[in-house]
Amino acid sequence: MSRNPRIVVWNEFRHERENPVVRRIYPDGIHTAIMNALRRDGFSDVRSATLDEPEHGLPPEVLEETDVLLWWGHRHHDDVSDAVVKRVHDRVLRGMGLVVLHSGHFSKIFKRLMGTACSVNWRADGERERVWVVKPEHPVAEGLGRYFELEQEEMYGEVFEIPEPDELVFLSWFAGGEVFRSGCCYTRGRGRIFYFRPGHETFPTYHDATVQRVIGNAARWVAPHAIAQDPSANIRRDPLEPLHNGRAG
Amino acid sequence: MSRNPRIVVWNEFRHERENPVVRRIYPDGIHTAIMNALRRDGFSDVRSATLDEPEHGLPPEVLEETDVLLWWGHRHHDDVSDAVVKRVHDRVLRGMGLVVLHSGHFSKIFKRLMGTACSVNWRADGERERVWVVKPEHPVAEGLGRYFELEQEEMYGEVFEIPEPDELVFLSWFAGGEVFRSGCCYTRGRGRIFYFRPGHETFPTYHDATVQRVIGNAARWVAPHAIAQDPSANIRRDPLEPLHNGRAG
Amino acid sequence: MSRNPRIVVWNEFRHERENPVVRRIYPDGIHTAIMNALRRDGFSDVRSATLDEPEHGLPPEVLEETDVLLWWGHRHHDDVSDAVVKRVHDRVLRGMGLVVLHSGHFSKIFKRLMGTACSVNWRADGERERVWVVKPEHPVAEGLGRYFELEQEEMYGEVFEIPEPDELVFLSWFAGGEVFRSGCCYTRGRGRIFYFRPGHETFPTYHDATVQRVIGNAARWVAPHAIAQDPSANIRRDPLEPLHNGRAG
Amino acid sequence: MSRNPRIVVWNEFRHERENPVVRRIYPDGIHTAIMNALRRDGFSDVRSATLDEPEHGLPPEVLEETDVLLWWGHRHHDDVSDAVVKRVHDRVLRGMGLVVLHSGHFSKIFKRLMGTACSVNWRADGERERVWVVKPEHPVAEGLGRYFELEQEEMYGEVFEIPEPDELVFLSWFAGGEVFRSGCCYTRGRGRIFYFRPGHETFPTYHDATVQRVIGNAARWVAPHAIAQDPSANIRRDPLEPLHNGRAG
Repeated sequence: MSRNPRIVVWNEFRHERENPVVRRIYPDGIHTAIMNALRRDGFSDVRSATLDEPEHGLPPEVLEETDVLLWWGHRHHDDVSDAVVKRVHDRVLRGMGLVVLHSGHFSKIFKRLMGTACSVNWRADGERERVWVVKPEHPVAEGLGRYFELEQEEMYGEVFEIPEPDELVFLSWFAGGEVFRSGCCYTRGRGRIFYFRPGHETFPTYHDATVQRVIGNAARWVAPHAIAQDPSANIRRDPLEPLHNGRAG
Repeated sequence: MSRNPRIVVWNEFRHERENPVVRRIYPDGIHTAIMNALRRDGFSDVRSATLDEPEHGLPPEVLEETDVLLWWGHRHHDDVSDAVVKRVHDRVLRGMGLVVLHSGHFSKIFKRLMGTACSVNWRADGERERVWVVKPEHPVAEGLGRYFELEQEEMYGEVFEIPEPDELVFLSWFAGGEVFRSGCCYTRGRGRIFYFRPGHETFPTYHDATVQRVIGNAARWVAPHAIAQDPSANIRRDPLEPLHNGRAG
Repeated sequence: MSRNPRIVVWNEFRHERENPVVRRIYPDGIHTAIMNALRRDGFSDVRSATLDEPEHGLPPEVLEETDVLLWWGHRHHDDVSDAVVKRVHDRVLRGMGLVVLHSGHFSKIFKRLMGTACSVNWRADGERERVWVVKPEHPVAEGLGRYFELEQEEMYGEVFEIPEPDELVFLSWFAGGEVFRSGCCYTRGRGRIFYFRPGHETFPTYHDATVQRVIGNAARWVAPHAIAQDPSANIRRDPLEPLHNGRAG
Repeated sequence: MSRNPRIVVWNEFRHERENPVVRRIYPDGIHTAIMNALRRDGFSDVRSATLDEPEHGLPPEVLEETDVLLWWGHRHHDDVSDAVVKRVHDRVLRGMGLVVLHSGHFSKIFKRLMGTACSVNWRADGERERVWVVKPEHPVAEGLGRYFELEQEEMYGEVFEIPEPDELVFLSWFAGGEVFRSGCCYTRGRGRIFYFRPGHETFPTYHDATVQRVIGNAARWVAPHAIAQDPSANIRRDPLEPLHNGRAG
């Protein structure tokens, strides 16, 4: 499964059409930059979905055939319909991997999966971010050095109101004085979730080779593995077969 | 704070009025049994709220003055209004403690806080449950022995679809062959949450002294402590004061 | 790496030579039963090491070329030299996977990695054990059903004095009334560790197909992945390159 | 218990006698600065113990009557006898709280409890450290603002080779470009452990009011609570009383 998960890159895709600064950096949209990088990384089944398509590009039949969903959204979280959010949520719980990017921390789907406010502090002055690898043995960090840098990024600062991550892979240092938990792993139901901080639309972050490497690693890590069983939900169980040995016989 | 948190015991309070078996066990409602036990444990500010009151007994002014909310619901989770659920959710994130009892695992508020399906397997044949203490140093287990037993309880079996608990305090053994994570601790936002499994309405579980002890311990543990600061949500931060020493000066 | 990790199965290998009951079940030793199962599972580089070999079969050159070590020991933990324990410990921290089996919970190496007493309660009456899968999406549970059973096993009961597992995959139910955390995942340094409970020497547990499946799954899961960098230990760092952008310039 | 735990502040106490720079800052030793602060915080039973006393000031009768041990050591970790380390380790597992300060990360006792190398990267150039509160609801952070600063401190950088903390309370930002997990909570056996980063001997860190506040908070948090039972270690259990109800009867 590791090289061939069926991937959908979801993008709000409005900044690129409305803001010339963003369009210059991502003329074909953030999703296209990410899709191209994933293909160069060896993934062969990579598609896109965007906010203004019918059902935001995520009708049931698409989601059922998706192994990994990446999510970039920013200003228009509220325009995502609750029905689609419910559908994505349900699909994650049944095993689809989810990679949430940057301002996606405030998307309906991430908040629903986390159960918390998912708020951050921020400052979009384009300062230096240094992303430290604090769990070098984690598959998401494969191939990285001790840290990597982005010359210009939006700052996100703590408190990041999330449940304590199952595993914390990256910590960011910002020139202006803040720190942030920038790479956070979760399992919810059968699905794996990775939150990755960088990626403000006015900076060329998704053209950065290291960022692309992390996104590919993350897609591999969240991709579903064969699981033990179909976990039937909330049902009555008949008494198990009689116990015929031991003290409880 | 430990002895004087302002407690509200929320109960669906329909089984007791509709089902004579339940009414015989809890003539004044499950909430009253729990409230009496909490008062005997030394809590002095204990009230109730029930589903069929206006706003389910949880208008904003009540919630704002509540430190600890206990939640028992079963068949009528869907009758709890989304507006009240949102209000309780927000209040937990700002620091109110929440103790979720038994079939409350499937309540809207618990599912919203967990972000998962919260499903279980179950069998209501009235079999023996033995609840093991696996984290004896946890405040919720204070005063207990190695395990305690309930002669007749509904069985809940794994998989319990929850996020991995921050701390696992109890594990149940059932005569029919199942196990269950019966005492689960979480922090979400500023609020603490404890899930406690026993308490099917057709058995006298809330009259059991050990169960009452656990509920009192849980109320103390989830009660809010003074916190570091008011965690202002998702706001722009000005650049911090200039750095005037060290290498980054 | 997943199919070709270099595996060493370490066995105390004294019970089988001294106790006719054990010898009848494992005429060539517990390690041989496990090795055969691993080979049938597709692993091609599987060797053994035993207590009474020089350096317990684990000289530095062997350990350096080992990706996954399985450890079964019981009565003679104290005969394992501290120098070899230190060597194994160091190797795990640098990335070797470790699967600790049954009474290996009380081995020097497991206690050293956990930092706790690792004690259990126990009863070797040969009662029924039902092992529940509580994390079906975990790679160690791949291919299993909701639970599996062993007709006769030694009981281990809580409190199992370990650090809270990073992930809890299995919970055991025993006919005599106990529960136990039977499948526990940890990362320590760069190395992954899996503790798997079943395997008392007087029962044919390691001939059980499901147990063999779990051991193969565990070997795959603990096998080292490429890691981000060589994590140089406790060294002075020169000031990082000058910062020439942003507020900290 | 919260105000009256019996506290021992352990200090290596050699730098202060050998290095005039350190002596000027801590003329009576680092332990005395910490003891005075704890007393001002309301703790009434605060003593010291130092490396060059017999048994390093920690004979069995002292440890048995200690609820909370604070540990500061730096250059002479190897001079601490293994017998005393074993004794402290055993005492923590039975419930004594432990607060490990700064370079104590590399002490024998901390490494033994963690099971990992506990290595860091470092640079003692006296740069600015900004300590961020990432878990404001944690008792150790009580009374703090969003962050606090130390004008001059030694830098510690990731990777800090520790087990993933149970709870992460502080993250440090350093002017020279690093980040560090500076406030880490663990439970091991019955004992709580808090690691707190700041405190290089050539800077007046322990005279800082906020640092003193954190140390007092930490002492309160690690102080033992009443626990469920005496957790008897690794013993045979007789079959439990016969089950006489339900399916397993």
